[in-house]
Amino acid sequence: MKMELTKKHKSFEGFTNYYKHNSVETGTEMSFSTFEPTGKVENAIIWLSGLTCTEENFITKSGVQKLLSETNTMVICPDTSPRGLDLKDEHESYDFGSGASFYVNATTPGYKDHYRMYDYISKEIVGLLKENFSIKKISIMGHSMGGHGALVLALNEADKFTSVSAFSPIVNPTKCPWGKKAFQGYLATEDEASKYDATLLVKSGQRREDTILIDQGLSDEFLEKELLTDNFTQVCKEQGQGLEVNYREGHNHSYFFISTFLESHVEHHLSYLNK
Amino acid sequence: MKMELTKKHKSFEGFTNYYKHNSVETGTEMSFSTFEPTGKVENAIIWLSGLTCTEENFITKSGVQKLLSETNTMVICPDTSPRGLDLKDEHESYDFGSGASFYVNATTPGYKDHYRMYDYISKEIVGLLKENFSIKKISIMGHSMGGHGALVLALNEADKFTSVSAFSPIVNPTKCPWGKKAFQGYLATEDEASKYDATLLVKSGQRREDTILIDQGLSDEFLEKELLTDNFTQVCKEQGQGLEVNYREGHNHSYFFISTFLESHVEHHLSYLNK
Repeated sequence: MKMELTKKHKSFEGFTNYYKHNSVETGTEMSFSTFEPTGKVENAIIWLSGLTCTEENFITKSGVQKLLSETNTMVICPDTSPRGLDLKDEHESYDFGSGASFYVNATTPGYKDHYRMYDYISKEIVGLLKENFSIKKISIMGHSMGGHGALVLALNEADKFTSVSAFSPIVNPTKCPWGKKAFQGYLATEDEASKYDATLLVKSGQRREDTILIDQGLSDEFLEKELLTDNFTQVCKEQGQGLEVNYREGHNHSYFFISTFLESHVEHHLSYLNK
Repeated sequence: MKMELTKKHKSFEGFTNYYKHNSVETGTEMSFSTFEPTGKVENAIIWLSGLTCTEENFITKSGVQKLLSETNTMVICPDTSPRGLDLKDEHESYDFGSGASFYVNATTPGYKDHYRMYDYISKEIVGLLKENFSIKKISIMGHSMGGHGALVLALNEADKFTSVSAFSPIVNPTKCPWGKKAFQGYLATEDEASKYDATLLVKSGQRREDTILIDQGLSDEFLEKELLTDNFTQVCKEQGQGLEVNYREGHNHSYFFISTFLESHVEHHLSYLNK
């Protein structure tokens, strides 16, 4: 697939790169960033960011470069939605439209032609990693809306992703204001929503063999209303899905929280990727 | 001195905090960020950022929290200029006025009442560290324009700062376009400039007992025209000023460069601060 390197920064033992490419799924130009260690790279971790983010946030703020510097694993950070469009209500609020795709394949008018972020990640980014970066195994993680995306993609596409983890994920979007608003705007019929709800997916029998890893700050301002971690914990317990949830005293929803515990998530993925 | 905590984020073994206070020197409200380890804190490092930056850049992008997490040393990152003013030409360009103070005490009309960033750092921030944070020893470092600020402050105020280091500093501002433009705008007379030029300061006999540490990327797009590292190296050699310059192959002017080598700068400062 054709892609263009737009910026290249030497970082630790590797390069932080920025690319753009014309996406078949979204019908727009899409941007992503990577950290590519200098040595032989065989595996990748996809990072999905949260509301209002772009391909910039994780790669500039997380400190991931140091952690992957001398490994065989790259990270790729896609943008969180198509850009450069002007669909109805697309730029009116921070939690819908641009920067807020929720990683679904939209089916509502206008959005259905571009907001195909589920297939963009599961087909196009996965394909690009294999074809352009010669990647063998892929794991996936994310934050908040991106944690939701990582869980949903990993549960639906178990064979494509070796392991999955999330920081402060929206685990039950059909039951929270952010998710309800997004699904109403993106999905033409109500029954489509269950495919994009991690709690409902585990309830309906979707399983992963690896242990799902979640870190959640206990001072997270969105925990009670939007994230609903316990709903996922409960259903994983009932259904026998392996899950490790680390509640972190005093931590909030920010990248300062992510960077504090990122090392343990990277180790989690490396242990599965290099098995 | 009165200051207000505006944001607090648990990070590693400590807190990333944001504050605002009414500055006597600038006559405006000023913002700064800190990382404060949980244990007993006795020392501080002042970080001065470069052109266009605020108190945000270093604290969100550098990864300094992990490096200071279990030490007795905090970091403080002041904003790079006064804000909320509307002086002549203040917001016209990225390299003069807001976000571009060059850490001088301005003497030109309008600017002389507010752009007193030299005294803001050397008196007000230093005083605030001692008074509000009970800090004993203070080191200073910075990037680009902030590297210039760190060198100039450390050379002029040798007793106030225990050690000094810089990434990609503007070492000879009277000889480069950025510096010439800034000094012309901020300084009423030409002879004031020599006080704010690290190369001229060492030439005129200012000395530090500690070794000055500089890291400089060899793919830095500003190296030849703006930074002029060799001028400083030359004069330090002539004058017997201890200096270690690490030229880094392939590295550019970005925070990806800073984060790669920050650990060695933090170690440099900790070794002097804990002597």
